Amino acid sequence: MVFWTNRRVPRPEASRLRPRVAPTELAKVDFSELVPEPVPFLGQAAYIQLEFFENLAKAVATAPSLPSKEGLSAAAGVALRKHHALIAELRRLGVEPDDVMAPFAPATDRFRQVSSGADWYELLLGIHITAGMLDAYFSRLAEGLPADLGARVRAILDEEGAAVVLETELKAAVEGDPRLADRLALWGRSLVGDTLLIARSALRASEASRPTGDDVEPVFTELIADHTRRMDALGLTA
Amino acid sequence: MVFWTNRRVPRPEASRLRPRVAPTELAKVDFSELVPEPVPFLGQAAYIQLEFFENLAKAVATAPSLPSKEGLSAAAGVALRKHHALIAELRRLGVEPDDVMAPFAPATDRFRQVSSGADWYELLLGIHITAGMLDAYFSRLAEGLPADLGARVRAILDEEGAAVVLETELKAAVEGDPRLADRLALWGRSLVGDTLLIARSALRASEASRPTGDDVEPVFTELIADHTRRMDALGLTA
Repeated sequence: MVFWTNRRVPRPEASRLRPRVAPTELAKVDFSELVPEPVPFLGQAAYIQLEFFENLAKAVATAPSLPSKEGLSAAAGVALRKHHALIAELRRLGVEPDDVMAPFAPATDRFRQVSSGADWYELLLGIHITAGMLDAYFSRLAEGLPADLGARVRAILDEEGAAVVLETELKAAVEGDPRLADRLALWGRSLVGDTLLIARSALRASEASRPTGDDVEPVFTELIADHTRRMDALGLTA
Repeated sequence: MVFWTNRRVPRPEASRLRPRVAPTELAKVDFSELVPEPVPFLGQAAYIQLEFFENLAKAVATAPSLPSKEGLSAAAGVALRKHHALIAELRRLGVEPDDVMAPFAPATDRFRQVSSGADWYELLLGIHITAGMLDAYFSRLAEGLPADLGARVRAILDEEGAAVVLETELKAAVEGDPRLADRLALWGRSLVGDTLLIARSALRASEASRPTGDDVEPVFTELIADHTRRMDALGLTA
């Protein structure tokens, strides 16, 4: 699957799809060195939002109280809106969203199962960590999309979703319970690897075409730094 | 819990809440004989939409194909929107939605479990029948609410939701499989009783204040006639 192309060795298909960007704009962020192909990019991003929705809906269904249900149901609504907005972008490009998402389904389904945890708190932390990392990641990658599309996709992905409600729920649970805090700290650490694998799968093709992964490393470093801040905010050791 | 009042023996609280309606308007539908108290009416209706959302989200998560997931996820979005719009009406009345919904949670949760079936097709038919009957029922009851509120609530509940996608999925499954058709016909019949019980629970208080249930019978007859049409459309014996 050819998904990413490296702008330094531009391919004809990519340059057709993407208008030239001023060099000053290019210099700002490492990420704009990578030019995602819009269709598979949108397909993978849309399917990942559907998985977040499914995990949030599971969190709604198993919530221990009505206020928790309410907060999570609003967050599930945001994930669903992101999913449908990305699907709408695929339709706008004249492709059938189901066909585009299908190749990403097996790995993403597995990822969802792996990250949904053993109880309600692990489920919540799983969503918090994976959605936190991947929304930021795909939003950064979207900088490399054609300008108009990129701006719309970033606006879609940057909408504030589950983070506040998940942080509130988890913080309250952890504060009174050091054993839960220990368990969740471990669980959080175990999720990072799988999440980075999903992130990296989006770069597969461009990685293969380059001898080193130099451009990409800073982004992964940044994702991990964000993760550490996210865990700190919960009072958990990252 | 005083939930319904009968306009024929108006209570002071109800008449304060509800502007007078012209007699010609009253004559049109039996249902406007009943004056629901806005707060518990909205609380029960909102909580029921949350349950439809949860069942639809479960149907999304267990869907056998991506096109099915897509159609159902849009339907889940509609149920969630209905839920949040009804919650917003409660906030507008100055009450805390969670407090108002809480008394309806146990019976509605049980109802959801009972109506979610043994497999994906039973889950789909369960949603189709219960949401079909209860959306229509609550929309009819909303005729008795104060005029502005009633119109908004009816607009919320009447939004086309899951019906088309559920009918399409179920029809396709049933057509090629007479054994599934027999099983689903039985399952459909078994759901009517529980759904009518939920509908009737909304009338509890007003029922108790009257010697006969005359006004209400035509509505239940109509709900069952709608149910028969819904089953017919699927090729199932009601």
